[in-house]
Amino acid sequence: MFSNILIIGFGLIGSSIAKGVQKNNLSKKITVFDTDKTVKKRIVSSKFKHIQYVDKIEKAISDADLVIICIPVLEYEKVFKNIAKFGKSNLIVTDVGSTKLNIVKLFNKNFKSKFSYVPSHPIAGTEKSGLENGFAELFHNRYNIISPTDNKKTKNVITIKKFWENLGMQVDILSAKEHDRILGITSHLPHLLAYSLVRTAMKTEKSMKSNIIKYSAGGFRDFTRITENNPNMWRDVFLANEKIIVELSKSLIEEIKEFGQDMTKKQSSKLHTKLNETRKVRKGIIKAKMAGKFIPND
Amino acid sequence: MFSNILIIGFGLIGSSIAKGVQKNNLSKKITVFDTDKTVKKRIVSSKFKHIQYVDKIEKAISDADLVIICIPVLEYEKVFKNIAKFGKSNLIVTDVGSTKLNIVKLFNKNFKSKFSYVPSHPIAGTEKSGLENGFAELFHNRYNIISPTDNKKTKNVITIKKFWENLGMQVDILSAKEHDRILGITSHLPHLLAYSLVRTAMKTEKSMKSNIIKYSAGGFRDFTRITENNPNMWRDVFLANEKIIVELSKSLIEEIKEFGQDMTKKQSSKLHTKLNETRKVRKGIIKAKMAGKFIPND
Repeated sequence: MFSNILIIGFGLIGSSIAKGVQKNNLSKKITVFDTDKTVKKRIVSSKFKHIQYVDKIEKAISDADLVIICIPVLEYEKVFKNIAKFGKSNLIVTDVGSTKLNIVKLFNKNFKSKFSYVPSHPIAGTEKSGLENGFAELFHNRYNIISPTDNKKTKNVITIKKFWENLGMQVDILSAKEHDRILGITSHLPHLLAYSLVRTAMKTEKSMKSNIIKYSAGGFRDFTRITENNPNMWRDVFLANEKIIVELSKSLIEEIKEFGQDMTKKQSSKLHTKLNETRKVRKGIIKAKMAGKFIPND
Repeated sequence: MFSNILIIGFGLIGSSIAKGVQKNNLSKKITVFDTDKTVKKRIVSSKFKHIQYVDKIEKAISDADLVIICIPVLEYEKVFKNIAKFGKSNLIVTDVGSTKLNIVKLFNKNFKSKFSYVPSHPIAGTEKSGLENGFAELFHNRYNIISPTDNKKTKNVITIKKFWENLGMQVDILSAKEHDRILGITSHLPHLLAYSLVRTAMKTEKSMKSNIIKYSAGGFRDFTRITENNPNMWRDVFLANEKIIVELSKSLIEEIKEFGQDMTKKQSSKLHTKLNETRKVRKGIIKAKMAGKFIPND
């Protein structure tokens, strides 16, 4: 499919892509660039075969026909500048970032005439970060959202769609705006909430920390899993999608307040109705799965 | 261990206890009472052996030497009255309720001189409710908190401790007040939050419901699992522990607001510190496990 794929940023996602590419023979060569200088050694000690670590980003870019950017979403500009300067004319650029509108705007403003970029977001991951934890099957039966910069299904969009499908993904095409709104609800707000809940627990139960850990199976732990994620990555997600996330969090605060008001005997039937309605959404997820709709596993 | 255990309320927990009791030979006989009249048939069709369903609670209570109450926490009073009236003199009563202070108060006020009660709370469950989903191993390697009504480790407390240990549980003894506070943080507040998040999503994305379900793997689904729980049970938990839950939810709202304020470039290093600190709590859970401390599995 490609001659030389360059992966910029070699963590969990980058290394999983490398393994998937090798397993499915999608490129003759894989090159890696990472500003973290330990990556070079760790590639060797993790027994990645046929992967070339390149020290100079200029060199790495000039040899590639596909660049996959796997770095925090507020660090793209520098990379885009290098790609504009050193990229081949037939180069395709894609990424794996969790926000899209900020990047599409940056690209359309300064880099549109310089190279071809197909924004993508594989909704896949584990709570473990680092290249040591990468595996080819990470993407199997997961969704990937492609948000074309001009909202058109060009030849390169189709190529990138095919690329992710070859890694086992189900690809959807949505505008960057839609993407950020949906991910705001399904991912960014839950993360904000998970962090806030853990902080509330830390604040309230300083002397009881071990109890919180011990008894976390009652619900708390479900929420802590996602707080294990990479803080650099998530700081950038929060900053990049700030407007939508803050708007959603205000709406959430209203729900929490209302919930508190309903916790009285007088409101108990209203409370029951709420719990019942909410349960139906969960049941919807399960039902959609059973009906054969494609819903990734828990 | 016992001659006749009566289980009042035969759902997921009650039926799992029955299976555990049989597997470990903890009672000669098991009797079941449930106000839901379908339970009788479902016990037969689910192939429970040697379990006797009794229609009259008076008769069921008068034959038992252990009663385990497995019903919502605001429905105990009626059962307590019947136990006071019909229970044997050597009867021990325990329960599995998720709140303790309200029940201990009720008991100490009206029933203290009538029978012996050892409040317990097995922190175990799945998102599936109903007797059809019960299994003996539900309690394996899980915590159980016993909150003695007079804060003393009496003979009966030790008997009940042993009973749960025989089902595979690790038993801790805490006051009812401590129990409600810790569970408020580790279970009740997370549940309130999960419900509120799902409701926010329902409200915000009416037209996008299928998208929310499709892309729920990004974090949202972690939160929806616990909303599948029994609404009757959870309505009562919220009402019974209202004071602590509302206090905690206020603290949480402050965290969410502060988080929103930190989502600016200016505060980005503060935001990063927060994410990093929070991550440490999760790492604490994993570390405690690896150090051989007893922390139940995810």
